[in-house]
Amino acid sequence: MKKKQITVIGGGTGSFAALLGLKKYPVYLRAIVTMMDDGGSSGRLRDELGVLPPGDIRQCIIALAKSTILLRDLFSYRYSIGDLKGHTFGNIFLSTLEKQTGSIKKAIKVVGKILNIKGEVIPVTYDKATLCVELLNGTIIRGEHHIDVSDDTEERDRINKAYLDPKPNPSEDALNAIQTADYILIGPGDLYTSVIPNLIVPKIANALKTSKAKKIYVLNIMTKFGQTTNYTAKDHIKDLEKYLGKGTIDLILMNNQKPSPETLLWYEKFKEIPVVDDLNDNSEYKVYRAKLIKDLLLNNKIEGDELRRSIIRHDPNKLASKIMSIINEN
Amino acid sequence: MKKKQITVIGGGTGSFAALLGLKKYPVYLRAIVTMMDDGGSSGRLRDELGVLPPGDIRQCIIALAKSTILLRDLFSYRYSIGDLKGHTFGNIFLSTLEKQTGSIKKAIKVVGKILNIKGEVIPVTYDKATLCVELLNGTIIRGEHHIDVSDDTEERDRINKAYLDPKPNPSEDALNAIQTADYILIGPGDLYTSVIPNLIVPKIANALKTSKAKKIYVLNIMTKFGQTTNYTAKDHIKDLEKYLGKGTIDLILMNNQKPSPETLLWYEKFKEIPVVDDLNDNSEYKVYRAKLIKDLLLNNKIEGDELRRSIIRHDPNKLASKIMSIINEN
Repeated sequence: MKKKQITVIGGGTGSFAALLGLKKYPVYLRAIVTMMDDGGSSGRLRDELGVLPPGDIRQCIIALAKSTILLRDLFSYRYSIGDLKGHTFGNIFLSTLEKQTGSIKKAIKVVGKILNIKGEVIPVTYDKATLCVELLNGTIIRGEHHIDVSDDTEERDRINKAYLDPKPNPSEDALNAIQTADYILIGPGDLYTSVIPNLIVPKIANALKTSKAKKIYVLNIMTKFGQTTNYTAKDHIKDLEKYLGKGTIDLILMNNQKPSPETLLWYEKFKEIPVVDDLNDNSEYKVYRAKLIKDLLLNNKIEGDELRRSIIRHDPNKLASKIMSIINEN
Repeated sequence: MKKKQITVIGGGTGSFAALLGLKKYPVYLRAIVTMMDDGGSSGRLRDELGVLPPGDIRQCIIALAKSTILLRDLFSYRYSIGDLKGHTFGNIFLSTLEKQTGSIKKAIKVVGKILNIKGEVIPVTYDKATLCVELLNGTIIRGEHHIDVSDDTEERDRINKAYLDPKPNPSEDALNAIQTADYILIGPGDLYTSVIPNLIVPKIANALKTSKAKKIYVLNIMTKFGQTTNYTAKDHIKDLEKYLGKGTIDLILMNNQKPSPETLLWYEKFKEIPVVDDLNDNSEYKVYRAKLIKDLLLNNKIEGDELRRSIIRHDPNKLASKIMSIINEN
């Protein structure tokens, strides 16, 4: 029997968890990743070397790697001092290969070979573009790392729409990975900085609409301050459908496990709460619910990294197991 | 027949040329490299990450690599802008692996596997030590990159002696590579910054004296301002023998090809001249002479690199061919 083809759309830690879990199943995985990151290590490499941002690619490659732990750890290695502070080795590796070969596609191929990856990592575009959002009050915010606010930022208006400037071309490989998939996972991942940046690349939303694949939207566990503040499940879907249109999403998967009181308290500082489940069971979507939490409650400030990281993630094994059972049902 | 075991002692571009050329012959190669570099990219990594200097190891690994041109070029890739300016990718790779595994030996093993090297690259020591020299007038200069002067430095006294502070332990692998070799090449390489730093590691000179291997000293083509200013062939050997004692060197190989007038003019600016051949043919050494020059006369300022590079090198093919003919005779 032909392996099921699963395409995961997103970037960052959400795609990482999904791919890491699904890698253990006999499926063919492709990850379409956003190319709009412009903060942190990726942002510096983008600015200084003129390359595409490597960070989301790096995470997906590591998730799909079958190589030794040593090499996977090497790619995740983050410098904490000196000139290299904040960079990860994998980012430097990818960007250097891109500079040298002139192509991020070739760079991914070489790194993928060294790390012996199972599946493919596909940039949604090979063009440079800046992610922009317009708030309900008309304010325009340019640049992913300005949208991805820190916790000391003042509360701001809801996002009305997201767009890319200039409009990039979609990569043929991304269109193909959508058109030929049996199942497409949208998310998990930050709505405005990981998921939607893919959907607003021209032709991608349309490819999703017309693809015969079942599309599963994996909702985030927590809201994200500054982009989905106080968003319920329905709010997430409403925003997604601005770009995808109604009827594109077939299935919804959401977490129904309550975080611990300590964890909730930690998130409270950052004005973040669990995404409220306001989905009606006889809505137009088939909704699946499962316990999906991996709680990292510990001092998880990553040395050398200026970005705050979330302490609740999707548990790769629980997520993959549930996705596989959904796939077997649909 | 067992392959001839050749051990090359040095570091930098001299060892690179010898190894690159010899790699094509059916011999087993081991490169013992100095660990005293403290300038440029290696110096920064040494200071900031607390690792051993990777530069000389990197060059020898690339020389021995059988991998694709792409990977070898990647390891040599030198950044010209941004935070990474002046670093080579290979240095960053080696230092990151050393940080991560806690051992430069393991780092060399991993990189050697990725680059598919033929032979071994062996640090002369795994301890940290600073290279120091005392001039004839008693002045002490500490740090390899202060010994390796730039062309605008004032003329200074001859070097009287070199030593390491603190005294490092030799690596067992280096001692073994000396004891079990059939032939040992000393040089080519800068006398005080590539060759002698190996010989002053405790037990190394004694291992060379007692090893049954034939020891071939490959003289440099040009003098080096600040360390071998106006040195003749005999001057080089005299300084070497301060550390090795008389009778350790069996054979001498030196270039007898005259550089072009344009090249001589270029070197004149830097107060450097071809090493004068004042070796008597009935001296205690058997002296071989051959045309060994590779002339890079072109704008060879390496982008992003703060170090001036020589434009005359040993031609890897000519050098290796002559060495192999010497080996077959002795």
